[in-house]
Amino acid sequence: MNVDDNLKALVLFSGGLDSTTTLAIAKAERYDVMALTINYQQRHNFEIKASKKILSKIPNIKHIIFNIDLSKIGGSALTDNQIDVPTNKTSGIPITYVPARNTIFLSIALAKAETVNSFDIFIGVNAIDYSGYPDCRPVFISEFEKLANLATKEAVQNKGSYKIHTPLITLSKAEIIKKGISLKVDYSITSSCYKRNKYGNPCGFCDACILRKKGFENAGFKDPLDYQ
Amino acid sequence: MNVDDNLKALVLFSGGLDSTTTLAIAKAERYDVMALTINYQQRHNFEIKASKKILSKIPNIKHIIFNIDLSKIGGSALTDNQIDVPTNKTSGIPITYVPARNTIFLSIALAKAETVNSFDIFIGVNAIDYSGYPDCRPVFISEFEKLANLATKEAVQNKGSYKIHTPLITLSKAEIIKKGISLKVDYSITSSCYKRNKYGNPCGFCDACILRKKGFENAGFKDPLDYQ
Repeated sequence: MNVDDNLKALVLFSGGLDSTTTLAIAKAERYDVMALTINYQQRHNFEIKASKKILSKIPNIKHIIFNIDLSKIGGSALTDNQIDVPTNKTSGIPITYVPARNTIFLSIALAKAETVNSFDIFIGVNAIDYSGYPDCRPVFISEFEKLANLATKEAVQNKGSYKIHTPLITLSKAEIIKKGISLKVDYSITSSCYKRNKYGNPCGFCDACILRKKGFENAGFKDPLDYQ
Repeated sequence: MNVDDNLKALVLFSGGLDSTTTLAIAKAERYDVMALTINYQQRHNFEIKASKKILSKIPNIKHIIFNIDLSKIGGSALTDNQIDVPTNKTSGIPITYVPARNTIFLSIALAKAETVNSFDIFIGVNAIDYSGYPDCRPVFISEFEKLANLATKEAVQNKGSYKIHTPLITLSKAEIIKKGISLKVDYSITSSCYKRNKYGNPCGFCDACILRKKGFENAGFKDPLDYQ
């Protein structure tokens, strides 16, 4: 546990189950948290609303919403409306993979961290109950950490070393949920679904919903969300 | 030289001297070139105009202008209008350093490359006559290349390996200019200055102008630009 109350952390925060738990962990570790939400014109931009709602209930967190239009890049069911979100678990890396998403997100987080003198970046990636995205794996994260310490003025001038914190990376979804509940995370306002219906209800069938529902089941808790 | 005429390359293209030379080199190597210009709300956004003008004179290049507002990140004289651009060479990494800029730019280029099935990304970084930016050094570039091959679906599925091409990295500015002239680059429409005046003339005193002027002098050519 970090005992320096003034140590800043920058948390990549989508408003989903994983990043909300990550944020709670960073707070519990007594970091002064700045939450960075990336609005990338994702299909499920309901999560931007969720991110605001969640933070409205947690005091003393600065919230930055940064816009980058990845629909101009495309190549994913989450950024190209011409590509359907699959409604069952497919084998291999699914079409919901967004090209280089975590590389882009961590780069933006690194830039912001450098300008606010933070060396601690949190990201809620998970490589156990996950969709197989290559940029959620420990090997990717440790490589990005190396890159961060070569890329930046602050690191090269020895003002500090960047650390990419991934407190969930070896946890199952059930373990993440148990951890979050122990930290009083309110999962009723987190958003996981890739394709909510027009009433805002999660579908229950996309990759993200399947992983979430199974997680709650295995953890022995009721998922507070109403599925369609 | 690459003999496959259909091999695509994505070239990060600012409209400056270095990236215009890099683009000419990629063309000379017979790549099918896609130019990616990042409009990051830089102070010297004259270069966006320059990038369009340059490409209007070169046939068969697809031009993508991608917007990302790094003034929301700040921390640099190029993205924060409250910070002045120095008018003489300072020691150390100058205040024109933009936090994590090349990490962000290469990430976006990587995402686009992945969606268009290109494995070749060109960037005109230079670590000889340069401003000391850490993200222009060979060690940074080789680390990013490693990251790219861990981060992406195409690489992980063994469809190919990403290569970050840096044809200028070990050249002096004079050598870059000589190379460009041998490839018929029209330097009269490239833009290097960080703070052009209201008539569009380069200042002659910022880091970028100093490096450019010295480069032409050492190469034994006249810089076609009119300085203030």
